[in-house]
Amino acid sequence: MSFLDKNFLLTTPLAQALFHNVAAPKGIIDYHCHLPPQDIAADRQFANLHEIWLEGDHYKWRALRANGVPEKFITGSALPWEKFAAWAETVPQTLRNPLYTWTHLELRRYFGVTALLEPSSAKEIWDKANTLLKTPELSARGILKKFKVEVICTTDDPADPLTHHKKIAAAKISTKVIPTYRPDKAFALSNPAAFNVWADRLGETANHDTHTLETFLGALKKRHDAFHTIGCRLSDHGLERCFAAECTDRQARDIFARVREGQAPDEAAQEQFGAYMMLYFARLDAARGWTKQLHLGPIRNTNPGLLQRVGADAGCDSIGDFPQARALAWYLGKLSAEDTLPKTIIYNINPADNYVFATMIGNFQDGVSPGKIQHGSGWWFLDQEEGMRWQINALSNQGLLSRFVGMLTDSRSFLSYPRHEYFRRILCDMLGCDVATGRIPSRRDYLEKLVANVCHDNAAAYFNFGSVGAPT
Amino acid sequence: MSFLDKNFLLTTPLAQALFHNVAAPKGIIDYHCHLPPQDIAADRQFANLHEIWLEGDHYKWRALRANGVPEKFITGSALPWEKFAAWAETVPQTLRNPLYTWTHLELRRYFGVTALLEPSSAKEIWDKANTLLKTPELSARGILKKFKVEVICTTDDPADPLTHHKKIAAAKISTKVIPTYRPDKAFALSNPAAFNVWADRLGETANHDTHTLETFLGALKKRHDAFHTIGCRLSDHGLERCFAAECTDRQARDIFARVREGQAPDEAAQEQFGAYMMLYFARLDAARGWTKQLHLGPIRNTNPGLLQRVGADAGCDSIGDFPQARALAWYLGKLSAEDTLPKTIIYNINPADNYVFATMIGNFQDGVSPGKIQHGSGWWFLDQEEGMRWQINALSNQGLLSRFVGMLTDSRSFLSYPRHEYFRRILCDMLGCDVATGRIPSRRDYLEKLVANVCHDNAAAYFNFGSVGAPT
Amino acid sequence: MSFLDKNFLLTTPLAQALFHNVAAPKGIIDYHCHLPPQDIAADRQFANLHEIWLEGDHYKWRALRANGVPEKFITGSALPWEKFAAWAETVPQTLRNPLYTWTHLELRRYFGVTALLEPSSAKEIWDKANTLLKTPELSARGILKKFKVEVICTTDDPADPLTHHKKIAAAKISTKVIPTYRPDKAFALSNPAAFNVWADRLGETANHDTHTLETFLGALKKRHDAFHTIGCRLSDHGLERCFAAECTDRQARDIFARVREGQAPDEAAQEQFGAYMMLYFARLDAARGWTKQLHLGPIRNTNPGLLQRVGADAGCDSIGDFPQARALAWYLGKLSAEDTLPKTIIYNINPADNYVFATMIGNFQDGVSPGKIQHGSGWWFLDQEEGMRWQINALSNQGLLSRFVGMLTDSRSFLSYPRHEYFRRILCDMLGCDVATGRIPSRRDYLEKLVANVCHDNAAAYFNFGSVGAPT
Repeated sequence: MSFLDKNFLLTTPLAQALFHNVAAPKGIIDYHCHLPPQDIAADRQFANLHEIWLEGDHYKWRALRANGVPEKFITGSALPWEKFAAWAETVPQTLRNPLYTWTHLELRRYFGVTALLEPSSAKEIWDKANTLLKTPELSARGILKKFKVEVICTTDDPADPLTHHKKIAAAKISTKVIPTYRPDKAFALSNPAAFNVWADRLGETANHDTHTLETFLGALKKRHDAFHTIGCRLSDHGLERCFAAECTDRQARDIFARVREGQAPDEAAQEQFGAYMMLYFARLDAARGWTKQLHLGPIRNTNPGLLQRVGADAGCDSIGDFPQARALAWYLGKLSAEDTLPKTIIYNINPADNYVFATMIGNFQDGVSPGKIQHGSGWWFLDQEEGMRWQINALSNQGLLSRFVGMLTDSRSFLSYPRHEYFRRILCDMLGCDVATGRIPSRRDYLEKLVANVCHDNAAAYFNFGSVGAPT
Repeated sequence: MSFLDKNFLLTTPLAQALFHNVAAPKGIIDYHCHLPPQDIAADRQFANLHEIWLEGDHYKWRALRANGVPEKFITGSALPWEKFAAWAETVPQTLRNPLYTWTHLELRRYFGVTALLEPSSAKEIWDKANTLLKTPELSARGILKKFKVEVICTTDDPADPLTHHKKIAAAKISTKVIPTYRPDKAFALSNPAAFNVWADRLGETANHDTHTLETFLGALKKRHDAFHTIGCRLSDHGLERCFAAECTDRQARDIFARVREGQAPDEAAQEQFGAYMMLYFARLDAARGWTKQLHLGPIRNTNPGLLQRVGADAGCDSIGDFPQARALAWYLGKLSAEDTLPKTIIYNINPADNYVFATMIGNFQDGVSPGKIQHGSGWWFLDQEEGMRWQINALSNQGLLSRFVGMLTDSRSFLSYPRHEYFRRILCDMLGCDVATGRIPSRRDYLEKLVANVCHDNAAAYFNFGSVGAPT
Repeated sequence: MSFLDKNFLLTTPLAQALFHNVAAPKGIIDYHCHLPPQDIAADRQFANLHEIWLEGDHYKWRALRANGVPEKFITGSALPWEKFAAWAETVPQTLRNPLYTWTHLELRRYFGVTALLEPSSAKEIWDKANTLLKTPELSARGILKKFKVEVICTTDDPADPLTHHKKIAAAKISTKVIPTYRPDKAFALSNPAAFNVWADRLGETANHDTHTLETFLGALKKRHDAFHTIGCRLSDHGLERCFAAECTDRQARDIFARVREGQAPDEAAQEQFGAYMMLYFARLDAARGWTKQLHLGPIRNTNPGLLQRVGADAGCDSIGDFPQARALAWYLGKLSAEDTLPKTIIYNINPADNYVFATMIGNFQDGVSPGKIQHGSGWWFLDQEEGMRWQINALSNQGLLSRFVGMLTDSRSFLSYPRHEYFRRILCDMLGCDVATGRIPSRRDYLEKLVANVCHDNAAAYFNFGSVGAPT
C-alpha cells in the first residue's frame, strides 16, 4: 500500500467499508480543543503556512529542536519563510513520528499537495498553500465548514468575559462554538500575588466581590452560569494528579483569607484547598448536567532556561509518573457518596496508566446514563497510532468501547481536523481485524452502529449540546 | 475465520495441531479459585441461567452499570428473568470486551448454544439453558466431571471449620477439592472490633486460646495443620503491596495486646504487624512444602455509596498503581536469607508491573526446584487475550516459560472453565507464530512438551497434590 | 521461515535489502560495555566455551537457577565441562527467552555451529568450539577484528590507573578501545569505611590529596583529564533514580568532612551530596564535550543470601519501579539553566517508563546539536526483541528516530556482538513493515540513510571519537 493511500491503515475490506461508508461521512464534534475563539470571531485569514501551521505548534518545535535547529528558526526572529524552510528540512528526519504522517495528511486534505515535504519541494508547497490560504475556503470559518465541524469546545478561563464567544454566537455560523470552563487558576495558590490578580479579575468579569471565600465561590458560580447561558456544557482541569485531602469550610476560609493577604500556604494547605475547590466545581457541573474533564499526569515547564527565554507552553512539558489511583478514587468516591458526581472523562497522559484509568471508570458507573464515566481518548503525546490503539484496547478490555465518546483534537491549530480521520481509520481497522480473525462476529449491524456511535453519535448524545441555545 | 470457530485464535497449522492434539485433551488443575465449597458439597443444581451466571459475577455487573442499566436489574430486586434480559440487552454493547467472548464460549461449551445473545435470542437461550441446568450433567459436580477438572483449590479463611470440605472429602468424587489457607484477617488491625470478633472465632474453630500473640500464632498454626490434613497445599494473600517493616517479637506482642484491648494501631504499627505475620505464615508454608500466593496491587471498595448499598465485592475494585519492587524484594529477601522462602507465585494486577514481577522472580530462584518462584498468570482484569499475551511474553523474555504453572480461573462461577481453553489457545498460537516466523525452531518434541507442561503437567508436579490424602 | 534463517526477523523484501545492503556491512561502535580491558591488553585466548560464555553471564545464571540447577554448577565448584553440560540441559527450557536466540546466533556466528544446543549435541559443540577458541581468530582481539568493532568503550572507575588501557593504546590495534568515566563510588556514602578506602585510592591514583571536598573534587577532575587524554569521551552512572536536592558548597563540605571522619550521613544528606556531585560531574563532561549516560531504575542485590555466598553481581538485580520524572527533570533542568548540560543519554530499565523518558528528552533538546539528549536503547532486561521494539516505537513517536545513536552491547562477554546484528534486523524489519503498510513512504534514499545513521553513522558523529588521539 502506498503512503497515505485511500485505504491508509485499513487492512481489511470490512475496515475499508466501515470507514468509507460509515465513519468518513460523519461530522466532527470536537469537544475539547484550544483553538483561539478570536480567530473564529474574526474569521481569520492566515497570511501563510507558517502562521497557520508552525507558529503555535509545540510538537513541531520539539522536533525542530531535536533536529538541531537553532531557536531563532523556531520561536525566534527568523522570517516566516526561513522558519518554514527549517521545518521542511526537518520533516524527512521525522520519519516514523506522527508529525510525518500528520504533515502530509494535512497537506493533502487542506491544500491538495501530494508531494513529500522536503527542502526540494518546500518552495512550491509554500507558494501553493499560501495562495490557497487567501481563499475563503481556508479562512477559520471556511475550514470548519469544509471539515463538517458541528461543535467546537474551546478552553476558557472563568475570568474571561467571553467577548469572542458572544460575537461568534451572534454570527450564527453553522458550527456550534462554545466555551469550556477551566478554572485551574482558582486553586493555584503557590504564587499569592498572581492568584490575587486573577481573583480580582474574576471579580470584575463577574461583577461580584471575591474577597472572602463565600463571595469568591459566588463569583465562580456566577461565571459558571454565564458560561452555561452561552452554551458551555463541559469543564476541564489539568492536574499532575487529583487533589485528595479533607478540608472543612472553616479551613478553606482560613487558607483563602491568608492568600488574599499575600501569604503563600504550605503544600498541605494547597492540597486541601485544591480538593475543596475541585469538589465545589464538581457540584456546579453535576447540578447543570455538565461533563467534567480531568487531564491528569503531565510534568510541566521542566526547562527553566527556555521558560525564561520563550515563556510557558514552549514545548517543555512531558509525561509524568505520578501515582494516580488512590487520589482519583478518593475524589470520585467523595462525589459519588454525596451524589454529586457529574459525567466525567478521565484522560491519562502516561500510557502506563491506561489500565488504571480504564478500570477506575468501572467503579463509578451508576447505571443511570450509559458510559457516564469515560476513559478519555489517547491524549497529547498519545494521539498517535500506538497511543490510540492502546487506549482503545484498554477501554475495550475493561469497559464498553460501544459507549465511548471518541476522539477530540486537543489542538491549537485549525489544521488538526484530519486527526479525526486518523482516529476513525484506526478504529475501523481494529474492528475489521477482529472480525477477520474471528475474535468478534461478522455482524454489520453491530459494527456500523458501533462505528457511528464512537465517531460521532455517542458524543452528540452524551454532552447534551442539543440543549444549547434552549432557555435555561 | 468465523467467530469462535474450531480454530479460534489459532492462526497457524502448528498452533492448531498443538492445541487440538496436546492442550485440549489435558485435564484442568484449577489451583486458585473462589468457588463456594458448599455448592460442591451439596452438588448444587442451579435453578436458572441467572443463578449460575449473573448472580455473583462482578465483571458482568460492571458492564451492566457502564451500559446504563439501573442497579435494580443488577444486584437489586428485579426478577431473575428481568436481570437476564438486561444482560442480553447489554451483551451486544460489550463487543471487544472479553465478556463478549466468554459469554458465547460458555453458551457453546455448556449449553450447545451457537446463537449470539441479544434481545431477540434471549428467551430461547434462557429456556434452553434452564432446561439443561436441570440435568445432572450440569450440577456442580457434573460440570467438574464434564470439564475434566482434576483439582480445585478454593479460597478459605483459617477460622472456617471446613465443614463443606470435609463433606466433599467424604464423598470421594473424582475431582480433588481442597481448601487454600487465606489468613488476611489475621493482620487486618485497622478495625479492632472486627479483628477481635475474628480472632475469637478463630479460637473457637481451632479450639485454642487467641488472647496473646503466642496463643494466636498457635491457633493459626493449628489451623494450618488442619488445612494440611484435609489436603491444602497453598496459601494466598491479597494485598495492595507487600508489607515491609522490621518488627521484633516484643513489638508484635505489644501491638497485638493493644488491639485485643480495642485500640487501633497507627499505620506504621499495622505495617510492622503485617510484615511480622507474613513472615510467620511463610515459615509455616515452607515447613509444609506449600506454595504461597501473593495477589498484589488492587485498589478496593472505591465506591462508598455502592459499598453501603450493595456491600463489599460489588464490582468497585480496580487496578492500583502502588510501588511494588522494593517491598516485594524486602519480603522475599528476608525469607530467602533465613531459608524459609516457600515456593511462591506472585501475581500483579497492574500490567505496567509485568516486567518488575517477571524479573523479580529471577532473583530468588534457588536452583533447588525448577520454577520455584513463579510469575502468576494474567489475573483478574488481565485474564483476557491482551493481558495473557503480555504476561506470557514478560515471563518468556525474563524467565522460563517452560516452567510456568499456567492458568487458573480465579473465578466464583462454575461456568468459567472455558477460560482454560482460552488460555491454551493463546499459548499455542504464540508458539505457532514463533515457529512460523523463525523465532524458535520447529521442534515438535520441544513444543509438545512445553504445551503439555504449561497447560497441566507443571502444575501437577509443582503443587505436590499427589501427596494429598497420604499420611502427614 | 526456519530458525535463524538468513532473513531472520526480516519479513519484507525491503527489510531484507536494507539489512543486507546497508546495515550488515557497517562496523560496530560499541559505546557502552563492561568488557575487561585486561583481556584486550593481553589478547586473551579463552580455554573453553565455559570461560568465554558462562563464567560471567548473569543472564545465563538466572536461567540455570530458574531451571532448578544447583549453584555448584553455576558459580560453584563444578568443572567447566559439567557447568557447560548443565547449560546444555537448560537451553531447551529457555525457548522464547532471548537466551535461546542469542545462544544459537552466537554458536553460528563464532563457531559455525548450526545444531541446536541440547544434551545430545553438547559434547560435539563443546569440542568444536574449544578447538576454534585456540585459533587467533577467536582471541579477544581476533573477535574484535572479525566483527568489525571500530570502537569499544569499557566502564571504568576514576580510581583505576588505566594500566590496561595504556597498554592497549600502545599496541595500536585497529579497534579504538577507550575507557568510560564511572564515578559512582564518589557519592556512595552509606558505608563511610568503604568510601574512605576508595577516596584514599583515588588520591593515590591521581597523586592528589582527597581529604577535603575541594581536593577530592580536584582529584576527580584530574582523573577526568587523564581519562580524556587516553581517549575517554563518555561518563556513566547507574542509579535507582536521579538525585534531586539542593545542596550548597558549605553543606557538601560538611557532609564530606563528616564522612571522612567515619560518620555515615542520613538519607537526606546522601541525597544532597549525590545531587551535588552529579552536578559537578556534568560540568566536567560539558566542558570537555563528553556524553553523559544515566542508567536509571534497577533494584540491586535483592537476595541477601546469594549476595553473601556468591558476592555482588550474582544475577540478583532486577527491574525497579521508582518514580523517575520529577527527579530527572530537576537534574536536567538545573544543568540546562546554568548552561552546563552535556550531551546526555538516558536509559530506563523499566519498560513502563519508556514514554516518560522518550518525552523527557524533548524538553532539553537545545537546537545546537541534533539529538543532543538521547533516549538510550532497550537496555539490560530490555535488549530483546519486545524491549527493542518498544523503545524504538517510543522514541519514534515522541522524538526523532533518525537521530538515534543506536545499539550498544552493555555486555561483559566477547560473544555478544551478534546483538548488534539482532538490533539491526529488528530496525530494518520495522521500517520494511511501515513501508509495506503505507505508514511511511517508499523512499529508499530516506530509509538507507536512516538505517546507516542509526546503525553506525550517528554514533560516529555524536560521540566525537574522531578527536581521540588528537592533541587536547
